[in-house]
Amino acid sequence: MASSPIVPSPVVETLPVYVAGRSIESVRAEFGIQDILKLASNENPLGPGKAAIRALADAARSMAVYPDGLAAPLLPELSRMWDWPAEGILVGNGSDEIFVLLAQAFLGPGRRVLVSEHTFSEYGFASKVVGAQVEIVPMSGYHYDLAGFLERIEGISAVFLCNPNNPTGTHHGHEALASFLRQVPASTLVVLDQAYAEYVETDPVQARELLAAHPNLVVTRTFSKIHGLAAARVGYMVASTEIVASVRRVKAPFNVNGPAQAAALAALSDRGHVLKSLETNRKGKIQLMRGLRDLGLKPVPTEGNFVFCPIGRDAAAVMKAMMQRGVILRATGSFGFPQAIRITVGKPSQNRRLLQELRTVLESIPPEST
Amino acid sequence: MASSPIVPSPVVETLPVYVAGRSIESVRAEFGIQDILKLASNENPLGPGKAAIRALADAARSMAVYPDGLAAPLLPELSRMWDWPAEGILVGNGSDEIFVLLAQAFLGPGRRVLVSEHTFSEYGFASKVVGAQVEIVPMSGYHYDLAGFLERIEGISAVFLCNPNNPTGTHHGHEALASFLRQVPASTLVVLDQAYAEYVETDPVQARELLAAHPNLVVTRTFSKIHGLAAARVGYMVASTEIVASVRRVKAPFNVNGPAQAAALAALSDRGHVLKSLETNRKGKIQLMRGLRDLGLKPVPTEGNFVFCPIGRDAAAVMKAMMQRGVILRATGSFGFPQAIRITVGKPSQNRRLLQELRTVLESIPPEST
Repeated sequence: MASSPIVPSPVVETLPVYVAGRSIESVRAEFGIQDILKLASNENPLGPGKAAIRALADAARSMAVYPDGLAAPLLPELSRMWDWPAEGILVGNGSDEIFVLLAQAFLGPGRRVLVSEHTFSEYGFASKVVGAQVEIVPMSGYHYDLAGFLERIEGISAVFLCNPNNPTGTHHGHEALASFLRQVPASTLVVLDQAYAEYVETDPVQARELLAAHPNLVVTRTFSKIHGLAAARVGYMVASTEIVASVRRVKAPFNVNGPAQAAALAALSDRGHVLKSLETNRKGKIQLMRGLRDLGLKPVPTEGNFVFCPIGRDAAAVMKAMMQRGVILRATGSFGFPQAIRITVGKPSQNRRLLQELRTVLESIPPEST
Repeated sequence: MASSPIVPSPVVETLPVYVAGRSIESVRAEFGIQDILKLASNENPLGPGKAAIRALADAARSMAVYPDGLAAPLLPELSRMWDWPAEGILVGNGSDEIFVLLAQAFLGPGRRVLVSEHTFSEYGFASKVVGAQVEIVPMSGYHYDLAGFLERIEGISAVFLCNPNNPTGTHHGHEALASFLRQVPASTLVVLDQAYAEYVETDPVQARELLAAHPNLVVTRTFSKIHGLAAARVGYMVASTEIVASVRRVKAPFNVNGPAQAAALAALSDRGHVLKSLETNRKGKIQLMRGLRDLGLKPVPTEGNFVFCPIGRDAAAVMKAMMQRGVILRATGSFGFPQAIRITVGKPSQNRRLLQELRTVLESIPPEST
């Protein structure tokens, strides 16, 4: 290809290409299999709730009208849930957009950011898009090393925490986070991504309490997981009204799809669907953990809706063999774990099918000597 | 409010707060009127087409699954329509997102951008968000001054053109754009926003031809206007595959809502709705132009789905008086025209109601001496 005389911004070269989970359509096309099971992207296996489905469909007729720029329909309910001023809440086109908006509002060239090794890629991505310098804090086992963050906190503009962590499923409980926040300088922004918070069973972080104590804290949540609305692209942040005011300035006028706002509002009130999703996840975790152990593996105990499991083999090869058998899981090479997989917790029959196929595949691919 | 120790990026201060058209809900709440007519945001008065409504509703059940990151369902149809490689097309969360992505990929601190006076605010916004320097080219009457752009083109990284222009409704025809592009250095990105292109009746720009001749050209289109999908937030850009490759790098993984992708695809094939929308606009333009002239005003001939009209009075006061009578139009003070209004072309009965109420309001507010 001829070289274009249009010169990209220097940030472009610093950005990796995002590695997404494979879609059902792409696997169907490549392997010619109809009945495909996808447990790769930590989606809700029960799908969206009926109330959200109805709300989206009802909003279709109003599609010609611009949506509210601040997602006004959602704010009163979120404000009530969090007991937090609506001016301290900002809704985004998924949490992904929130991370970029935070980077635009608070980072930039010359500012330094701490991000953990082996975590969700979008914190580093958002920081690099605005030209900030990203420094990686090594993990401690499969956990975030909060002490390691503190050792390097001097002069840092922002830290991003994924808790529970994607892809390892580990988390730090309330007191660990509270202690961490007490030691972070008040001038350092702490972004706590709680995409999987609703699934936590052990010592959940009391985010509202931490927010009230720490004006440098931003908590993000998503409708993509427990609410089953990944396609709707709705996430939000809770923080001080001052932080939100700055983020509003960098936000494009109409960032959140209108029907999606309606679906998210309906999902918030659909307590039945949330409880059913939690129950499915609780049972499915046990089933998957037991099944993986039966295969001689050592899955990492999880607080999310997915299980991380080292497999002692090239995970890309295992993933490919699984796809040939119609099951999509996630090889975690892009997270820096080339010999591990991440499996989304499914319904009982789905977990069973995955475990069966995985047994066959692992028997055909011998462990590598380590 | 106590000053936060969190220091925003210097770009935040450079950003104006976006002034959106008023929503029906907000006017209803403020003025206590039920029957409100909104002709303020250049929305399609016929609403979305039936095919798009159905497609959105059908996609609701799949909301738990992440959407395709490149809007793959839409690309083949756009590629066919434009006779252009799919790798040269990128779909965004409205054109608004496309402008920010272009700025992230090609602008930044130290780069200079030309933007016209009296035009859509998002070009300057996107440029400032990434820290680029925005220089304003004065208008010539109510038209973009393309010669004025060329006089200042030396050392410019990007120019943004709104054609037809929002809010004045004026446009430059094909040969004027072609001649302009021949004179712009190949190293300067030209972003041609064609949000209203489908409405043009006089000498439309042949965008495909210009794209083939100028690898530095980016054309943007939207589903918010002629397709009646403003709430769905879908826009796209067409450009060289090299430019699109750079923009893909700065794009978040899942930027376009899944059901919206389905609705947009359905809208593309719904030729009947497009033709009906065009016919409504063609008749409505004539009705509004005539009606405004009957009020002694001099509306500017338009190539869009809206009419710009100087009114010789404080437009904010006129807008408020109109809202008190249940009609929302747009005062164009935020575009630098404090004594003009922009009216979206509506259905015949809507245009009639607007003209009637405007007559009453203008009689109650005398012209200011100039």
